Amino acid sequence: MNFHVMTLFPEMIMQGLNVSIIGRAIEKGLISIEAVNIRDYAFNKHNKVDDYIYGGGAGMLMQAEPVYLCYEAIRERITSGSRPRVVYLTPQGEVFTQKKAQELAKEDDLILLCGHYEGIDERVLEEIVTDNISIGDYVLTGGELPAMIVVDAVSRLIPGVLNNDVSAEFESFQDDLLEYPQYSRPEIWHGKRVPEVLLSGHHANVEKWRHEQSVIRTRERRPDLLDNKEKS
Amino acid sequence: MNFHVMTLFPEMIMQGLNVSIIGRAIEKGLISIEAVNIRDYAFNKHNKVDDYIYGGGAGMLMQAEPVYLCYEAIRERITSGSRPRVVYLTPQGEVFTQKKAQELAKEDDLILLCGHYEGIDERVLEEIVTDNISIGDYVLTGGELPAMIVVDAVSRLIPGVLNNDVSAEFESFQDDLLEYPQYSRPEIWHGKRVPEVLLSGHHANVEKWRHEQSVIRTRERRPDLLDNKEKS
Repeated sequence: MNFHVMTLFPEMIMQGLNVSIIGRAIEKGLISIEAVNIRDYAFNKHNKVDDYIYGGGAGMLMQAEPVYLCYEAIRERITSGSRPRVVYLTPQGEVFTQKKAQELAKEDDLILLCGHYEGIDERVLEEIVTDNISIGDYVLTGGELPAMIVVDAVSRLIPGVLNNDVSAEFESFQDDLLEYPQYSRPEIWHGKRVPEVLLSGHHANVEKWRHEQSVIRTRERRPDLLDNKEKS
Repeated sequence: MNFHVMTLFPEMIMQGLNVSIIGRAIEKGLISIEAVNIRDYAFNKHNKVDDYIYGGGAGMLMQAEPVYLCYEAIRERITSGSRPRVVYLTPQGEVFTQKKAQELAKEDDLILLCGHYEGIDERVLEEIVTDNISIGDYVLTGGELPAMIVVDAVSRLIPGVLNNDVSAEFESFQDDLLEYPQYSRPEIWHGKRVPEVLLSGHHANVEKWRHEQSVIRTRERRPDLLDNKEKS
């Protein structure tokens, strides 16, 4: 799978994603990530890509043309034929979920568009964007971190990226329940003992305890997930 | 405001946050960010910080002791006196929102704890963590990107970090409505004209149009926000 990130800060994308699990996946050739600088497609001598907002308002807007030219350049390099998905990271998008990550993981190529300043001229978004995605209801300085979040969440679903394919499945959001508490050595730490049942070797009891803990934790911290569960 | 990030991948944090608006805020001395390597507090000669999970299960868990020692080392350096807030980035947390960002922006020091592998031993979490935060309902390879999201969202609320304090206020999530479409020069691009009203100079009409567009867009993309609005 090839990720193409359109951004004003390509070094942020490349440096933030070349470590740990994602870095290893790149080395192994399981995924590729290119960050393309929208500023390279500025059409004036000052490399300016932003301008004032029609109708007034604070801040500057990214203009349509450099974004479009950058998109066209990437599209020419993509050989898979069909029109690529273009994800615009924006607080005005649908909320990103694990289900959406699974959907995007089926693509061969994925273009991610990072806004900056006050956003991007609506007309180029209408023309090129296929998915508007918000990673959550908070405001950030740009779309770069959200793009990295999407790359990370999608990449780990690609076979071979996690050492251990079990991990991608048995995990948070299984059955709309939060994960149970987990413990590792030593058995006693700061006077706190690992729950007895986990040392028992009795598989069914362990499973029962874990499920109960998941339900308790979900009720305390995310009752909205239990509501979803009852509805479905 | 000082951010202290506990992580196994300090270079990811430092490289990802030294550009653009956040990079400038660090240069200006408005915020500081240190990334502390939990591995430096490993208590064995192999620098191992993880071990098997009691009760069975795929993957490895970060052990309590290195996390605790790392926390203690940071705490000794914090001079502000009171017990610092410690945010653990976890899918098992409460969902991060703009309101939470505003709350955290009042702190002088904020410690962010990034999990990796299957998570962290519950006992050290009980002992040091004050806030469990999830940035959204999707699974990532580690807590580093979520920590960077929190640093970014909180930093931009600190006076002076944005060039323009108006931007921090008039923005997405104002009144639980998504932002309206925006346009910049030229007036006609790819045959698409900027909506006439935005060129009219009639301030009240511009505001009316923008509000209508916000409502339309919110209804289309995020009807859940309108439901919240009606409840409150």
